[in-house]
Amino acid sequence: MKKSPTAEIISVGNELLIGHTLDTNSHWIAKRFTRFGWTLQRITVLRDSLPAIRDGVTGALRRKSDLLITLGGLGPTHDDMTLKGIAIALDTRLMLNPEALAMVKARYSKLEASTGLTRSRRKMATLPEGAEPLPNIVGTAPGVTIKVGTIRLISLPGVPSEMKAIFTGSVIPMLRASEAEAPKEVTVGLVGIVESALAPALDRTRKAFPGLYFKSHPRGREGGIRSLIQLHVYSVDPASRAKLDKAIAYLLRKLSKSAYSGPKGQRKPGKKVLES
Amino acid sequence: MKKSPTAEIISVGNELLIGHTLDTNSHWIAKRFTRFGWTLQRITVLRDSLPAIRDGVTGALRRKSDLLITLGGLGPTHDDMTLKGIAIALDTRLMLNPEALAMVKARYSKLEASTGLTRSRRKMATLPEGAEPLPNIVGTAPGVTIKVGTIRLISLPGVPSEMKAIFTGSVIPMLRASEAEAPKEVTVGLVGIVESALAPALDRTRKAFPGLYFKSHPRGREGGIRSLIQLHVYSVDPASRAKLDKAIAYLLRKLSKSAYSGPKGQRKPGKKVLES
Repeated sequence: MKKSPTAEIISVGNELLIGHTLDTNSHWIAKRFTRFGWTLQRITVLRDSLPAIRDGVTGALRRKSDLLITLGGLGPTHDDMTLKGIAIALDTRLMLNPEALAMVKARYSKLEASTGLTRSRRKMATLPEGAEPLPNIVGTAPGVTIKVGTIRLISLPGVPSEMKAIFTGSVIPMLRASEAEAPKEVTVGLVGIVESALAPALDRTRKAFPGLYFKSHPRGREGGIRSLIQLHVYSVDPASRAKLDKAIAYLLRKLSKSAYSGPKGQRKPGKKVLES
Repeated sequence: MKKSPTAEIISVGNELLIGHTLDTNSHWIAKRFTRFGWTLQRITVLRDSLPAIRDGVTGALRRKSDLLITLGGLGPTHDDMTLKGIAIALDTRLMLNPEALAMVKARYSKLEASTGLTRSRRKMATLPEGAEPLPNIVGTAPGVTIKVGTIRLISLPGVPSEMKAIFTGSVIPMLRASEAEAPKEVTVGLVGIVESALAPALDRTRKAFPGLYFKSHPRGREGGIRSLIQLHVYSVDPASRAKLDKAIAYLLRKLSKSAYSGPKGQRKPGKKVLES
């Protein structure tokens, strides 16, 4: 079994940490990592601060995921400092990148003739040495990519439409290379059983089916205790759907033999109600 | 000016990293930190893995925020391993806590007479040595608090209703101690100006009003370039609202003098449209 490629996300922005904006970007990207068989190891949300960005990037690079994506802080204003923080972490300098400058120029020349390339606009084309711009067809600040040893570092804007455009155009083609490794998965609903009663049967099933991954989520309530459990089963290697079904059948058998006894008049424990 | 107390959040759960669940818990808590004058320094999302939790907790403790909150992984199943990860990070052992056991017992005795305290249920009352349970009036697994040097570490369940109940009951009273330090803030909308044209005026205003914090968010589009900007201004020390208004008036004056020139027929740049 080939090891699933790994990734981390660093999301930069005070607006995320003061509770003004919910970080939906990381969630959107996480789904795509899963779809293409990648394992997202960690998400880190950082303030607009050079030491915070430097430390966050240094820590992530030390953990050596295959891919490190930063989100936010690429714009023209003073508090957009992701690339400077990356340059400090890499101990390299920031340089005006001609290719990036051409992208920014092309964008502004359409709208405003008189102001030209202000310092703020040149800032968006100033990248860490060795980096390359990724085209942004929706906004102005290009994405940025740089190779750090074995790690591919990619910086994307925080504006969701721009992030998605660059991710779709430039990052997904890279992820597709691993698509064959995509996990098989199945979700079942278990009614009338509390999570702590499920645990022993789940532990036995886990041991009987190594390589499969089980995660239970309490979803409903009965008598003050949750009793609809959503069980998510998947495999990081290309397991067949039949193997997952076998594991679930095994779990349900274990459940029906378990010591569980709910209050009278409840539905039969372990009943499977939904499957996707 | 008294330094604003600081916090970090560690959110544990594969479901967050495979894109099944959006981490709304951290966002909900972030809002409350801001409301009570606390600064949230970082959010870290980790997998259900002992080394990941150990490393995440160790790193957060090293950064010495006043408060470290972990979310998730307190339940009865095999993959709920937050407390074990914390115990490893603190180099301490896990022990059955009599007070926590009484809380778990009280919860289950209402529902099921025959099964009693299974291993899975005792697990929820097994805490790092020196920790104390926090009552969970909505679910079963108690919250957990432990003092680590100058840092208060609090572990809460990942189920939102349970997290909110314990946070409201046990954490907010702690945050309230700093309420007098709560930031004053104001948001204005600027129409008909692009972010890169705003940047120079914003930089000057920033210099003229040290202690105030400015953050611009592009929100609308005109001619393919965003041109509604939401500007969020706040102060971490108890500045008067008058001071914020003065800073905004200053910025608007700078903007009207700036070199900005939009396409003809557009609205006047720098027009303030909304305020809250």
